[in-house]
Formats: sequence, structure tokens, C-alpha cells
Amino acid sequence: MKAAVDNKVRDIKAVWFEDGKVVMIDQRRLPHELVLTRFDDYMDVREAIRNMTVRGAPSIGAAAAYAMCLAALKGCDLDKAAADVQSARPTANDLFYAVRYMLDKLSGGADPVAAADGYARLTREKCEAIGRHGAELIEDGMKLMTHCNAGALATVDVGTALAPMRFAHDQGKRFFVYASETRPRLQGMQLTAWELGQEGIDHAIIPDGASAYYMSKGVDLIIVGADRIARNGDFANKIGTMDKAIVAKHFGIPFYVAAPVSTFDFATATGADIVIEQRPEEEVTEVAGTRIAPSGSKALNPSFDVTPAGLVTGFITEKGILKPEEIDRVMG
Amino acid sequence: MKAAVDNKVRDIKAVWFEDGKVVMIDQRRLPHELVLTRFDDYMDVREAIRNMTVRGAPSIGAAAAYAMCLAALKGCDLDKAAADVQSARPTANDLFYAVRYMLDKLSGGADPVAAADGYARLTREKCEAIGRHGAELIEDGMKLMTHCNAGALATVDVGTALAPMRFAHDQGKRFFVYASETRPRLQGMQLTAWELGQEGIDHAIIPDGASAYYMSKGVDLIIVGADRIARNGDFANKIGTMDKAIVAKHFGIPFYVAAPVSTFDFATATGADIVIEQRPEEEVTEVAGTRIAPSGSKALNPSFDVTPAGLVTGFITEKGILKPEEIDRVMG
Repeated sequence: MKAAVDNKVRDIKAVWFEDGKVVMIDQRRLPHELVLTRFDDYMDVREAIRNMTVRGAPSIGAAAAYAMCLAALKGCDLDKAAADVQSARPTANDLFYAVRYMLDKLSGGADPVAAADGYARLTREKCEAIGRHGAELIEDGMKLMTHCNAGALATVDVGTALAPMRFAHDQGKRFFVYASETRPRLQGMQLTAWELGQEGIDHAIIPDGASAYYMSKGVDLIIVGADRIARNGDFANKIGTMDKAIVAKHFGIPFYVAAPVSTFDFATATGADIVIEQRPEEEVTEVAGTRIAPSGSKALNPSFDVTPAGLVTGFITEKGILKPEEIDRVMG
Repeated sequence: MKAAVDNKVRDIKAVWFEDGKVVMIDQRRLPHELVLTRFDDYMDVREAIRNMTVRGAPSIGAAAAYAMCLAALKGCDLDKAAADVQSARPTANDLFYAVRYMLDKLSGGADPVAAADGYARLTREKCEAIGRHGAELIEDGMKLMTHCNAGALATVDVGTALAPMRFAHDQGKRFFVYASETRPRLQGMQLTAWELGQEGIDHAIIPDGASAYYMSKGVDLIIVGADRIARNGDFANKIGTMDKAIVAKHFGIPFYVAAPVSTFDFATATGADIVIEQRPEEEVTEVAGTRIAPSGSKALNPSFDVTPAGLVTGFITEKGILKPEEIDRVMG
């Protein structure tokens, strides 16, 4: 992704391996400052996944792969490391997928760094394919909407939901993106808007509750990411996604989910089987460490919701754009 | 409404007249502190309406009535004062209704204070009737949802959307309320949750985007307020209301609008004719004066949306609960 580092625009990734350490952008500090953090202990990478220094399903997967790489380099017990890393967060399928990928490679005698780098490179290549396929949906003059951050930060590089926008932008198409702010952690405001700005894509931040207002005025296409997609096409994504999908259906607006095949979890039959992470209420009741809620009130903070497959127009994957009923045939 | 003032729980109103001055709770300081402000110039009351020291359609109406009262007491040109006060905010019908009410009373020789107090008292009485009618919808064990603040703060006393909850609570019914936080100004988190807490009603704050999640888990009844209701039943309310109404329809959840008859604007044929106030983008991009958005990104901040009448189960008014198609017959 493009990012201004020390006032120079360069191409960087959300997470990579360098000089024996896992390097990642601290996504909690964006958009105010671009800070790189370095880890050489896999448990510290686990904590970075847990505390959302790194977030977004594919980036979590890459971070998990690098965590396993660190564990292997240090000669740790890999089964214990796998269990530790997988316990960091419960919803994103990529976390489990990446750990299994690394166990498989390492048991086959692969070099840990080459294996993890290979996983991250595969993630990038999948995003590029998603971008190519998805860009065909975007026409000049369209108004788009997305939710949360499924850009390069969430996916090592390029993005899933934002990849089609990047490719379309590079093809010279002109369009406008509504980025809903995504309370409580504001990834839409702080990460998606930042990425769109770095790429020079025209956009505006809207409150999450302004989605129906702008859809009623005319939105042509909605693209979101996914943290886990069940076999029947129900999918988990950031809280607020289901609201948008229902409203989009009401207004007849095409609603697409962009995700690599690694996000499809064939062991999960339907969305009812997806575990939803409940995060601390302080993420809702506090902003920058200051309490904004009444002292006696509690808050609820489900991190994801599950959108039924029936609300999805199509899944933009590296294998092409699939309808929910095509998942089994193409990937089963 | 009940409120702890100097550690003693007492009954106060959102706005009243005392010792020649208009007194109001500064709603921007809640829930952190309960501050009363006093005005003796009608233009200062106009500014308090504009900057949201006082907000909520019926409270704006009462504040406007007291502003006209101050103008009359000081011998100001009443037509100029009416135009000044009405220009404070564009969407709430009560603002226009209250100014016309006062012009009518004052031209008939009424005492300014008695006329404005009468307007505020009428508002309270309407809310009590709304509470009585609406409480019949609430059953023991229900899960309710509301949006923004349509409580005593918004309505001088008692509330509109919250009035049925207060009456049901006083009748000994036990129920639970999801209060969506209502970005960008957080009136749900900072005002509704505060009011529910003062009244001892069980509740939790949720992010606006968690509405579909909790509706999918089971919500029995949704009650919101309204800032203006068109002749056909389309209504303007805080941004995010239309999202909830569409999602409620999707899940088959009853969706009620609680508002006094003064909120119905028969000069407005449909929702398409309602002017939507666009507020400053800083309300979205800043929290407590600190910018939280990327420096290059702009934000859009429509203050209200317009929910189509077809999504409304019923209007809870002081005249009873009406279906959208009954508006003309009962009030025309």
C-alpha cells in the first residue's frame, strides 16, 4: 500500500519479516501516526493480534504465520505455539487457517521464514486477483459504500473490499466511496479513510447510522470484507455489516463480499455456528481513555455480526465472483 | 424527570421559567455534570437551540415559546423575534408550532409567562398521555430498543419514546432497553442511558451498528421519537432511525413512533418535502475537540433521516395509537 513514511510516499505492508523480527504497522495509532513495531517472541505477536495492533482477517492470518515462524526459529513446542496463537481471537478463520498452513509446511521441513513469507505473498496475490475480478463491477461515476477496514492494513497488502476500488482507480475510473466510521473502534474512519486518502480515492466518512440515508439517495454498489464465511454463504464481518446488508436489500443495492478462499470455513455449516467475540465494554464507553457514558450504564460490544447468505449478491474471491449457491460447487 | 442534583434526587424539567429567566439543563454537559444555564435575552435562547444546549423537538418547542416570552417581556418586535427563533434549526416542526402558538396567544393579549408556561405544561401533559397509551404495548420480560434521546430532556419532562417505558416501569413491569449510542453526538449514550439510569430502568448502550445483531437475537418492541411527521406518515428523526426501521421490518419487529400531535406537519405532504439539516463535519471527525479522522478526509453529517410510513407499526400520540393511514382521519 502507499503510505507517507517520514514525508516520503513509499510502498509498505501491514506486516512483514525483517532482520529476524516480525514488523507491523501499529494500526491502533493510525491515522495520527505511522508507527512500526517489531517482535521476536511469538507470544508478543499473539498479544499484538489480541490487542488489535494488527487486525483484519488476512493480516491476522499473516501475523499468525509469522508468529509460528518465530516459534519455529526459537525451537518452541509447535503444538503449544499453535494452540497459543489460535486462542488470540475467536472469529476470523484466517487465524486458524494460517496456523494449520504453517504446521503443515514446518512438519514437511520447510524453512520457517520462507514458509511464512510464502503465506503472506499468497495473501497478497489473492488480493490482487480479488481486485482484478471486483474492478469489473465498478463503473465510472458510481457511488460505493464499504464498512470497517478491509484494505491493505487488514490484508497485508492491496486489500479485499478495497482491492477492487484500487484496481478501478488505477484503471482511471472515477467514483466516490462512503466509508462508515465503524464504531466502536472506528476502523472505517481511522483506517479505511486513511487508506483511501493515501491512494487518492475520493471519499467521505459517514456515521454508521447514516447508511440508510445515503443508500436512499443512491448508492450503486456495496463491498465489504469478511472474517469467516460459512459453507452456506452466511458470513461474519464487523458489527454493523448485517444492518447495511438488510438496508441494501431494501433499496435493491448490490451487496458484495470480498474475501480470499481462506476465509471460507467448510467446517462451519451456517452462520449460527460462528462464534462471535464479545469485546470489552470500555471500547464503547470510553474514547481515548476518557469515559463518555453515564457512570451507571453498561454497554454491550459484540465485535461481529453474521449476515445471512440470502442478502449477498456475490462473493468476490481470487477464483472469481461467486453467488452464494455456487460456493459448494466451486470450492467444495 | 428524576435527576440527582447536588446528591439529592429531585424532579426537574429540561427547560422552565424562573425569576424572569429561562432556565435549562445544558444537555451538552451530560452525563458528566448537571449544569443549569439561565438566559434573559431571546437571542441567547435561539443560540442555545442552535448549539444544542437544548435539543429534542418538544423541548426545542418549549425553549422557542420561552424565547418568544422573553421577546415579549422586553418589548421586542415579535415578528422579527419569530423569524429569528424559527431560523435556529430547520427540521423540528415543534419549533415553528411553538412560535405560532405564542404569536397567537400574545396577539390575543395573553401574559407572556403564562402563555409559555402553558405551552410547556401542555407538552408535559401530552407526554403523560403518550406514556399511558404506549405503556399498554410493553409486557413483562420484553426487550425494547430505542434510538437517540426522546426522553424528558428532549420533551421538557416525561418524554415521548421513553414515556411508555417510564409508565410501564412505574406499573411494575420488568423489561430491558437497548439504547443505541447515536453517533455523532451520542445522545443515546449520554442522554437516554443517563435518563434510564436515573429512573432505575435496566438498559445497556450498544453501538449503532449493533442494532441488527440484537434484533436478530430477539427484540420485542422498538419505540423512537420524531422531529417532524408528514401528512402521509413519513417522519424525520435522528440519523440512524431509518436503518433501524428497515432492519425491524426485516425481522418483523413492531416499530412505533411516539410523538405529540404538534410534531405532525400537515403542510408537509410526504417525507420528500422535509428539509434535512446538515451539521458540521467536525461533529463526526472530532471527539471532545480532538480530531480522530485522517487529516485529508472529509465527513458528511446529516442530522436526520426520513423513515417511510410503510415501516411504521403505529404512532403513539396523546390521542391514542394511530396507524399511518389513520393520521388524516383523526387529525386532518
